[in-house]
Amino acid sequence: MSNSLFDFGMIGLGVMGRNLLLNMADHGFSVIGFDKDEAKNVALEAAATPGTTVKGVPELAQMIHLLQRPRKVMMLVPAGQPVDDVIASLLPLLEEGDVVIDGGNSHYTDTLRRVKYLHEKNIHFMGIGVSGGEQGARSGPSIMPGGNQTAYEHVRPMLEAIAAKVGDTPCVAYLGKEGAGHYVKMVHNGIEYAIMQLISESYAILKHGGLSNKQLHEVFKTWNEGKLQSFLVEITAEIFLQKDDKGEGDLVDVISDKAGSKGTGKWTSQDSMELPVAVPVIDTAVAMRTLSGYKDERIKASEIYGKNAVGDTASQELTDQVYDALYFATILSYAQGLAMLFQASQDLKMDIPLPQVVSVWRGGCIIRSSLLEVFTNAYKQNPELSNILLNQEVAALVKSAEDNTRSLIAFAAKSGVAAAGLMSSLAYFDAYKSERMPTNLIQAQRDYFGAHTYQRIDTPGTFHTEWGQP
Amino acid sequence: MSNSLFDFGMIGLGVMGRNLLLNMADHGFSVIGFDKDEAKNVALEAAATPGTTVKGVPELAQMIHLLQRPRKVMMLVPAGQPVDDVIASLLPLLEEGDVVIDGGNSHYTDTLRRVKYLHEKNIHFMGIGVSGGEQGARSGPSIMPGGNQTAYEHVRPMLEAIAAKVGDTPCVAYLGKEGAGHYVKMVHNGIEYAIMQLISESYAILKHGGLSNKQLHEVFKTWNEGKLQSFLVEITAEIFLQKDDKGEGDLVDVISDKAGSKGTGKWTSQDSMELPVAVPVIDTAVAMRTLSGYKDERIKASEIYGKNAVGDTASQELTDQVYDALYFATILSYAQGLAMLFQASQDLKMDIPLPQVVSVWRGGCIIRSSLLEVFTNAYKQNPELSNILLNQEVAALVKSAEDNTRSLIAFAAKSGVAAAGLMSSLAYFDAYKSERMPTNLIQAQRDYFGAHTYQRIDTPGTFHTEWGQP
Repeated sequence: MSNSLFDFGMIGLGVMGRNLLLNMADHGFSVIGFDKDEAKNVALEAAATPGTTVKGVPELAQMIHLLQRPRKVMMLVPAGQPVDDVIASLLPLLEEGDVVIDGGNSHYTDTLRRVKYLHEKNIHFMGIGVSGGEQGARSGPSIMPGGNQTAYEHVRPMLEAIAAKVGDTPCVAYLGKEGAGHYVKMVHNGIEYAIMQLISESYAILKHGGLSNKQLHEVFKTWNEGKLQSFLVEITAEIFLQKDDKGEGDLVDVISDKAGSKGTGKWTSQDSMELPVAVPVIDTAVAMRTLSGYKDERIKASEIYGKNAVGDTASQELTDQVYDALYFATILSYAQGLAMLFQASQDLKMDIPLPQVVSVWRGGCIIRSSLLEVFTNAYKQNPELSNILLNQEVAALVKSAEDNTRSLIAFAAKSGVAAAGLMSSLAYFDAYKSERMPTNLIQAQRDYFGAHTYQRIDTPGTFHTEWGQP
Repeated sequence: MSNSLFDFGMIGLGVMGRNLLLNMADHGFSVIGFDKDEAKNVALEAAATPGTTVKGVPELAQMIHLLQRPRKVMMLVPAGQPVDDVIASLLPLLEEGDVVIDGGNSHYTDTLRRVKYLHEKNIHFMGIGVSGGEQGARSGPSIMPGGNQTAYEHVRPMLEAIAAKVGDTPCVAYLGKEGAGHYVKMVHNGIEYAIMQLISESYAILKHGGLSNKQLHEVFKTWNEGKLQSFLVEITAEIFLQKDDKGEGDLVDVISDKAGSKGTGKWTSQDSMELPVAVPVIDTAVAMRTLSGYKDERIKASEIYGKNAVGDTASQELTDQVYDALYFATILSYAQGLAMLFQASQDLKMDIPLPQVVSVWRGGCIIRSSLLEVFTNAYKQNPELSNILLNQEVAALVKSAEDNTRSLIAFAAKSGVAAAGLMSSLAYFDAYKSERMPTNLIQAQRDYFGAHTYQRIDTPGTFHTEWGQP
């Protein structure tokens, strides 16, 4: 190799780290990776496109010494203690002005702590969310950087080069201070949970209605060509085609219904309650994944309460209702997640630019969809939009799907197919558009039993009543 | 006063602390309270029943020196730092074997930390949940003690004396180790949030249907005489009768719909996700209280989307449907909270005895209801019941209300009155009784885009598929 130093270093050469490096090398940057596992270093170099500059080394110090200054180092290691361990081993090797990036799914409060810790040593720490899975990392992910803006400028050329593109626009932008990148990625994942839950409910309703996997494929394929165009609907259509390589039938039918999770959806719900902001479709998605794990109890309950049975209800009308309900509820899921980012940006002082967030999400990430073009337009009209449901164009789309959504949920309630996410989206919508909620009664109850006081609609101040004393 | 020492001391003579002491004194114990505010000491002594031994002092050391050993001291101060401050000021004054009780709404992890801290100094620290509000504290609360069982025996006579009674049984029992008392109280409050939300939705549906406050009073009064008999339904009936002392009409109509909260419902939802266990009706109640605070946005949204308008739908049939739906969803709320306690007892090693929990909740507390007799019977049959929905007697009650619940939710979906909690309870029910949930699709999606692997229904192990490659 030549004596020239490398542009970018990666710690952890799992498939995500390797693919991001290869992607960067393909765009003309010289890259170096470190992994203790020599097999991964070999695999990295073997996978490099001929003519690109890619090196893997088994010693961290070796990599650091081969980097241009200020050094630009990303780690892709499991969230939690491993990130702190990497930082500890990096510190003796780094110099002032170097940029350290955590590209994993760390909780934003951990990122905040690390930013402050490294800031004291004049080292820039950035939390960057990366979405798109293995394929996305290789061919163009959606990238959500947060942290010091000067530090961002150092890594911006690489990130813009490797990011997914929408037209000529890279799906990466500076998304705010300190923990903002990981916060945006967390909420991205919360929305992802919600939409996946909604798609699974749509699947359940159509399947109980009698549709075969082949027909389900056709339905989702058609939907992906219309207003529901999105990565998740697209792969759902493909999933129904997948044959079981260990048996006769379709793979989807033999996959266990116990769903896993990595915790980012849970964090979204928990953190939404801290702000607080209401994200009930995400909460519901988290709860349903949890319930999926209670398999033994569900089997017992199905024996006691009888199985769900919709019968032969499949019809074009039902399919159209599911289509609109999924569309409606998907918009509501984005609305809740974006409302959370709006609130977090203010309350946690992260200065998250929502127009850039939705623009970045348009390509490369798991929740990319044609709806994000609509939202990008909405934020262009008003960058300070507190909830996308208040945008007129979005409102028109919601209204167009409202009637079918109501019909579908009435059907689900009657038929006994669980539609927790779909119902939650409609209930949120109906509460959100209530000038007056019935929570005045809750305030009366709280004052009755706990003397918690209440406010009046006609007079400022705080009041308490000795209830039940005429 | 005589030279004899006092049986029990209280730190903080707000209305709750004062009422608990007066209650104890009425049962023959000599009690002493400490508050820096001399007015509260005077108020305590002035409110004592003639012939009882009640004293208030302005110095903590003075109170501690006047207590029998082992000393039994309860604090009723705001959760958080104030509790730690009280502990710090108590420590120099206490001796080995003394019992310190936190009777407030502390988070169980704080209690756990304090138990360990004081254990090192051979002082017993107990977290005790107290429910019943001001009135309950004076005349008989529901008491949820957790901590060291030996320490509990020291305070048991006082607690049994002051607790609410169901027949001859006091509504207090040892409810588990370390933070168990506060954990049980937290989940109690989570269930309380859920039921209050459900009642508010029932109110909204009937009110939009055209019922007057007078009619609402009659409906809830009648309900309280039947299977829905409960403290919360009882006070709801009374609330509709309350006249506005500052105006012409009924008080409930001029109370603001921005609902407050003290955070225990939020904790329940957040901690349920840690276990994890699904409590979506509680999650929904938390979300709706949050949304109630977004008043300005709701007004804007109501202008864009139009107000909810059910029209003159009130009928006996609708009222009956609401009745059954509220009953159904109330059972589901208890079921979710109790399932959380079951899981927490195991996972957090708190050994919470569920038969005692529901027995204690039968009287004195905010969620007391005739249903708790049913649950007490259920746990008598099986103390290790993981979910009360699996009890046959409970199942019969659920099934009896199921059809009307389905009809009511279909109506709510069509009419546009938000019914988030009611819908959430039905959706949970339908998912819980699903032998197979559609989450197999979620697992397929996760493996497709993130190589997260999946399990099969026919073969043990973990699998990954290269999707979309025929």
